[in-house]
Amino acid sequence: MKKIEVRISGLGGQGVVAAGQILGRAAVYDGKNVVQTQSYGAEARGSAAKSEVIISNDKIGFPAVRKSDVLAAISQEALDKYLKDLKEEGVLIVDSTYVKKIPETRAKTYKIPATEEAERMFGAKIYANMLILGALTKTIGISVKATEKAIEDTLGKKVADINKEAFRKGRSLS
Amino acid sequence: MKKIEVRISGLGGQGVVAAGQILGRAAVYDGKNVVQTQSYGAEARGSAAKSEVIISNDKIGFPAVRKSDVLAAISQEALDKYLKDLKEEGVLIVDSTYVKKIPETRAKTYKIPATEEAERMFGAKIYANMLILGALTKTIGISVKATEKAIEDTLGKKVADINKEAFRKGRSLS
Repeated sequence: MKKIEVRISGLGGQGVVAAGQILGRAAVYDGKNVVQTQSYGAEARGSAAKSEVIISNDKIGFPAVRKSDVLAAISQEALDKYLKDLKEEGVLIVDSTYVKKIPETRAKTYKIPATEEAERMFGAKIYANMLILGALTKTIGISVKATEKAIEDTLGKKVADINKEAFRKGRSLS
Repeated sequence: MKKIEVRISGLGGQGVVAAGQILGRAAVYDGKNVVQTQSYGAEARGSAAKSEVIISNDKIGFPAVRKSDVLAAISQEALDKYLKDLKEEGVLIVDSTYVKKIPETRAKTYKIPATEEAERMFGAKIYANMLILGALTKTIGISVKATEKAIEDTLGKKVADINKEAFRKGRSLS
């Protein structure tokens, strides 16, 4: 891995920012350099949310993602907005619960029914982002150990187990 | 306030990332749009750490800070590195416990003995970042109410009170 640029996008309240923070932290635990950015507005809940993570073995010069290597889209709107900024040979991960129309693309595509699975497993949509995180870390090559430590350190021990279970499910589905 | 670009810099372990996250969140609670970025490396503890926050009433186009309006420097090294990227009429906030040599500058300068005060008040350096946060939010015009809510939501209720006390001390010293 030289440098990987990741964009995670969805709606406010879908855990996009938390997923990016945990991914960034896990990559640091795996010995990488990381720049992690989140954008949010006053009306974040329900409106668009975006988190970007640049992961590199070397120092990171330009700190903003332009064309991403990996795009995770948790809403149809997010896919429609950011697919054009995914590199041609990139990797696309979608939550197929919400993303139904995927334009023709050369990107390697993973359809994860993250929200459905989260509801089925835990009775709560809020763990869908952990399933997406599982698919993301597997694609990028971030270790399970580093990610589970990052989940604990970011979300706290109390809720770590359920989130780790959702994360591992996401890995198994991708 | 049209758009304010803030850079917080210091050493890993000084709470630079947490300060940026709380500032970003507080600004959102105050109705602003925010892009918040953190950079860290594998050896974050002890090496350089940096957090950037762009706060705007409008949508934020370019997501990276170039020349900042405000610079908070918690280490001498951080000041030496980033002072040249502070706008001429900007605001400089330093932790005067660590930053002893300030080159001549036209920036409005606040010297906050943040680490000394944190040790005196709580017997622990780790609250120094909250004193810096106090000075930052006062300078930028982010409300006490929004910041205290952001402290609670970011750090958790258990440790909120002591952090809020440190934060208010930082406001009173600036």
